[in-house]
Amino acid sequence: MSASRIYFDHNATAPLDQDVLKAMLPFLQSNHGNPASRHHEGRVAHDAVERARHQVAAAVNARPSEVFFTSSGTESNNTIIKGIAGRNGKTRIVTSGIEHPCVHCAARAMVRLGCEFIPVAVDEQGRLDFADLETAVAGASPAVVSIMLANNETGVVLDVARAAQIGHAVDAVVHSDCAQALGKIPVDFQKLNIDAMTISAHKAGGPMGIAALIVKAHVDCLPLLEGGGQENGMRSGTLNVAGAVGFGRAAELGRERLDEYQRHTGKLRAMLESRLLSAGAVIFSGEASRLPNTSYFGFAGIEGEALVVMIDQAGFAVASGSACASTKNEPSNVLMAMGCDEVTARTAVRVSLGLDNTEAQIEALATAICEITQSLRSMSAVMNA
Amino acid sequence: MSASRIYFDHNATAPLDQDVLKAMLPFLQSNHGNPASRHHEGRVAHDAVERARHQVAAAVNARPSEVFFTSSGTESNNTIIKGIAGRNGKTRIVTSGIEHPCVHCAARAMVRLGCEFIPVAVDEQGRLDFADLETAVAGASPAVVSIMLANNETGVVLDVARAAQIGHAVDAVVHSDCAQALGKIPVDFQKLNIDAMTISAHKAGGPMGIAALIVKAHVDCLPLLEGGGQENGMRSGTLNVAGAVGFGRAAELGRERLDEYQRHTGKLRAMLESRLLSAGAVIFSGEASRLPNTSYFGFAGIEGEALVVMIDQAGFAVASGSACASTKNEPSNVLMAMGCDEVTARTAVRVSLGLDNTEAQIEALATAICEITQSLRSMSAVMNA
Repeated sequence: MSASRIYFDHNATAPLDQDVLKAMLPFLQSNHGNPASRHHEGRVAHDAVERARHQVAAAVNARPSEVFFTSSGTESNNTIIKGIAGRNGKTRIVTSGIEHPCVHCAARAMVRLGCEFIPVAVDEQGRLDFADLETAVAGASPAVVSIMLANNETGVVLDVARAAQIGHAVDAVVHSDCAQALGKIPVDFQKLNIDAMTISAHKAGGPMGIAALIVKAHVDCLPLLEGGGQENGMRSGTLNVAGAVGFGRAAELGRERLDEYQRHTGKLRAMLESRLLSAGAVIFSGEASRLPNTSYFGFAGIEGEALVVMIDQAGFAVASGSACASTKNEPSNVLMAMGCDEVTARTAVRVSLGLDNTEAQIEALATAICEITQSLRSMSAVMNA
Repeated sequence: MSASRIYFDHNATAPLDQDVLKAMLPFLQSNHGNPASRHHEGRVAHDAVERARHQVAAAVNARPSEVFFTSSGTESNNTIIKGIAGRNGKTRIVTSGIEHPCVHCAARAMVRLGCEFIPVAVDEQGRLDFADLETAVAGASPAVVSIMLANNETGVVLDVARAAQIGHAVDAVVHSDCAQALGKIPVDFQKLNIDAMTISAHKAGGPMGIAALIVKAHVDCLPLLEGGGQENGMRSGTLNVAGAVGFGRAAELGRERLDEYQRHTGKLRAMLESRLLSAGAVIFSGEASRLPNTSYFGFAGIEGEALVVMIDQAGFAVASGSACASTKNEPSNVLMAMGCDEVTARTAVRVSLGLDNTEAQIEALATAICEITQSLRSMSAVMNA
C-alpha cells in the first residue's frame, strides 16, 4: 500500500493492531495444535483459546462460559436469529429497521420457514422508536428482539438497555449486534441486560475471520454449524486458534485504550465536522448520540459514490455506505429507514476514524473534500449555465 | 513448544507452512482493506482474494467462479447439506456411514425438519458398499448424496467417481468432503464428476479458519450465512483476507509438492507399519486404498486413549481418533461402522504424517511404541499373575 494513503474506513475494517499480530505469531509459527487434540500441542492451543475467551469475556463484562467463538459478526447474527426464531412456537422476530443486512437477511430466511419479521421504525436521527417497538412486541411474544448497539453507517448508539426491558417484559430473548460498538464505546453485557450479543474482532483491531456470539446459559439456541461439538456444541468446526488469540488481545487492548480512543477520535471528528459544515455538508444523525469515530455526511447535489471515488483518488479511503453493501448501487437502507429521500440518501459519505489517525490527516482530508466539492459545483454550474 | 516434540497428527491439523505465512504477512501488517470496499485498500484486498480463489481452483481443477470461501470444512459441509436437503420436494440425504460428524450432524438437523437420512454401509476395510448405496438411492430421488473422498481416521480413499455415477443416475446433487484428501492425493473436481466439494486449508499447510465450498453453477444451494452478499451471495460475512491468501498459497504449494508428499509419507508409513506389525499391531483398513500419510492401528488389550497419553509423554503427538471427537470417550464410529467390535475399536491409535517428518522420527516413534506396549503387557501379566 502506498505510503501516502490515509485510511478513514475503520468501520469497514480496522488495521490489525501490530501488538495483536505479535500475540498471534507464535500460533502461526511454532504452536500448531488443534485445540480439540489431547496431546501437548493440543493442550497448548486449547489453553491459548481459553485465555482468549477470558480476555474477550472481560472486555464486555460477560462470563467466559458465555463466549462462543465464530468466524464473523454475520455468522454470530445468523446463528442467534436462525437458532431461536420458530422455537417453542414463538415465530415473531423483532429487530430495528436499521440492523446490518445479516440480521435482516437471517430474519427473512426464517420468514420462508413460517416466521414473522417486524422491523421497528427509527426517527429521522436514526434513534429507535420505542412506541413502535412496543407495538411490534404486542399481541404475540416474539422469539427474539434484536437491536444493534451502534449503527455501522450513522454511528448512532441505540438505547439497547431500554429495548431489553421491553423485550423481556414479553419474554423474548434479547440480542444486540455490538460488532460496530466494541472498542469504541463501553460494551457491557450485564449492564445492557441482554441475553445474547454479537461482537467481531476486525472492527476493533483484531484479525478478520474471528468473532463471537455471547449467550447466557438459559438461552436455548440451536447451533448453525454442527459437527465435532466444539464450543460446547454451540459452534462446531476447528477453531481458528491464532484468530482467537488475536481477538483476545485486541479485546484487552480495546478495553485499556477505550478512554483514549473516545477522546482522540471524538476530537478529530469534531474538527472534521466543523470543516464539513462550513463547506455546506449535512451531517446525518448529527443530533443523536453517536460512536465518537463515525461521521456520516453528504453534500446536496453531489453523489456520494462519485465523491468517494474522487476522495480515493486524492489518497484517502472513505466509504459511501456499509462496506458489505458498498459494491451495490442502492441508496443506504439506513438513511431510507430514517425517512431520508432517495436523492439525499445517495449523497452519503462515511468517514470512520481510528486511534492511528492524526489531526494533520483530518486537515488534509477536510481540505481535499472542500476542494473536490467546490470543483464539482463549479463544473456543475458551468454545465447548467 | 518444546524442541524435542515430534508431531504426527497432521490429519487433526498440519503445521502452517512458513512459505504460506510469508504470503499472508502483508495482509496482517500493512494491507488491511475490506475486499467489499471500493477504495484502493479494498481493491488490493479484493485482488488478493481473487488471486487466492484462482490458486484454490487450479489446485482442484475447478473454475474460480465455483470456489466459495468459508471458515471451515464444517461450515462448508453444513452449508451444502442444509442448503440443498428438502428443496424442490426432495427430502432424502444419503451419505456414507463414515462421514465426518459435521456431515452426519447436519443431516440429522435436517431430519428434525422433515428430511430422511440414510447412511450407507462400508465393508470391514472401510470401503463404500455400492450395493447399499444403490439401495439407499432407490425409491425416491435423494436431494444430496455426500461421500467423502478420504476418511479422516482410517485414511481410506473412497471411490467417489463411482458413487457420483450412482447419485447422478437418480438426479441427486453429489457432494464430496475432500477436506482430508487435499494435498495428500490428487483431488480433481472435474474427474470426480461431482457437483460440490469441501476442502479446508489447515489440513494442508494453510491457516485455520479458512476453507472452501466448491459448487457448480447449476446447483441451487441456499446460503447458510446471509447478509452483505459476499461470495456472490453464497456466503456472507467479511472475508478473512489473510486466511484466503494463505489458503491460496497452500493449495498451490500442495499441488507442486504432491508427488514428493506421496512418495515421502508413503515410505515413512511403510517403515512405521512394518515395525508396528512386528510388534503385534493390527492395522485398520490396511488392505484398502489409503491416504499415504495415515496409519490407524491398535494393539489387542491396550486402550488407545491410554497409549496416546503415554506416547505423548514420550514426546510424540498422535491421536486416538478424529481430533474433533477426541475429547469424547466414545469408540470410533468409523471403526464401529466397519463392523469392528467395541473393545477392538477402543484400541485405535492414529499416526498421520507430514512432509516435515523424517525417517529418524519414525524410528524413534516406532521404538517408543514398542517399548510402551511391551511395558504395558509386562505390567498386565504381573497384574494377572
